[in-house]
Amino acid sequence: MPHHDVPSAFAAATAVTRTEGGGLAAVLDAGWDVGSGILNGGYLLAVAARAAAVESPHPHPVAVSASYLRATGPGPAALTVTPGPAGRTLAHSSVLLGGADGPTLAVQATTATLTDEPPLYADPLPSVPAVDDCLPADAGADLGGRPVPEVGLRKQVQTRLDPATAGWAVGRPSGEPVMRGWVRLTDGTPPDPFALILFADVLPPTSWGLGRFGWSPTVQLQVLVRALPAPGWCLVESRASEVAGGWLDENYRIWDATGRLVAQSRQLARLPR
Amino acid sequence: MPHHDVPSAFAAATAVTRTEGGGLAAVLDAGWDVGSGILNGGYLLAVAARAAAVESPHPHPVAVSASYLRATGPGPAALTVTPGPAGRTLAHSSVLLGGADGPTLAVQATTATLTDEPPLYADPLPSVPAVDDCLPADAGADLGGRPVPEVGLRKQVQTRLDPATAGWAVGRPSGEPVMRGWVRLTDGTPPDPFALILFADVLPPTSWGLGRFGWSPTVQLQVLVRALPAPGWCLVESRASEVAGGWLDENYRIWDATGRLVAQSRQLARLPR
Repeated sequence: MPHHDVPSAFAAATAVTRTEGGGLAAVLDAGWDVGSGILNGGYLLAVAARAAAVESPHPHPVAVSASYLRATGPGPAALTVTPGPAGRTLAHSSVLLGGADGPTLAVQATTATLTDEPPLYADPLPSVPAVDDCLPADAGADLGGRPVPEVGLRKQVQTRLDPATAGWAVGRPSGEPVMRGWVRLTDGTPPDPFALILFADVLPPTSWGLGRFGWSPTVQLQVLVRALPAPGWCLVESRASEVAGGWLDENYRIWDATGRLVAQSRQLARLPR
Repeated sequence: MPHHDVPSAFAAATAVTRTEGGGLAAVLDAGWDVGSGILNGGYLLAVAARAAAVESPHPHPVAVSASYLRATGPGPAALTVTPGPAGRTLAHSSVLLGGADGPTLAVQATTATLTDEPPLYADPLPSVPAVDDCLPADAGADLGGRPVPEVGLRKQVQTRLDPATAGWAVGRPSGEPVMRGWVRLTDGTPPDPFALILFADVLPPTSWGLGRFGWSPTVQLQVLVRALPAPGWCLVESRASEVAGGWLDENYRIWDATGRLVAQSRQLARLPR
């Protein structure tokens, strides 16, 4: 948690605590849903990453790969961390997150110590309008058609969509499975490695750019965190490489306010037919 | 294994068998090394994927995410599969591969049934010279400088590098962390989903394109298999998005001989300083 008196909404909602029995527990917050009481996959993975960091000699998640075993709702959850090899540079562990009915998320986690050291090579920020020239897509916002759903995720994270990837909202899908937008935590806290994990599953499904709407449940998601992000808005771009046979991938890149690539992810998801 | 009398070298080297105790075992083959007795990460992940498929109602790995806990050498290995939820569309499991000293590879696996159904959307094949106009990079080949090392991987897989990404071999690195080449199994067997997992870690490190040589040990690797590949050469492209702080990512896309995107992967690796 940040070093001030009141934890941020994100820090509180993803907090992991030590139980009397020596294990780890969290209370999954109903306020981070994507509809129908289902919690956002990035939110859940951030909770699991906090558990991995708590049990590691290193403070930051650098690679987390998760299988989404079942949809996860709010309430008390147990986090079981099985440590693997740990060294001076990095440590491995596996994390199971589950409720009364057993595990719902199984994660391979690698922790290390991140810096903001300049890269030898990095993908540049794509050309995108400034935050104020993008479209607010927060809960209840009117993008020109129906309002953005009042789900928790769209209240907790402020989103400004690149108009070039928001045509679907006004009945003119771009024909490309790409989403791009600026995001930040609504509570005003600056991004950290755990928030980057949240942002790695924060945009609307890329299939909406093809005019195929509906929910795309995540099957597996890998997030790499590459550097400590600077304060401010992050630019998030999501792109599918293939949509076929009821499956799609989503490949995210995330840059901080200085234009530095700070995280990447790829997920395999189901596509409603 | 293929349905003919003699299993292919790849099928034999990755075979998983049932032990008398009911568990699964493999004999890791010294002939698939990348030097110093260390086995290739894609080879090891293909063995783990076979174990997941053996214990699943579905025949094909569609997503496998692995933490490389320790370098793995040849010899007998145990495979411990913990089944997760299994349904009509997909099944989850986790797989531990290990030898006498404990687990060396921890994998989240998702299996399903792949087809070669045409995609709704797919990344096209990049522009690349034909196989015969690319540079042979098999064990012992002379690329214009020192010969390709006589390691097992370069004997088991035939590689034809795109000259545009092979400048490093003649002292003129392109300055871009990109590798591209055609690959196929030397034993002549057509590619299958398990071979695609092997191909997702088969090219020289992309850091060589920046003139930074040396071995880049894989930390975590996620492979998505998207379709059944057609027979023939596969085109493999590997690209780093960021090289910083002693880490690099490698993002692979693999197309089959018909130009269909059939697999993708991303790994986080260490970069020797």
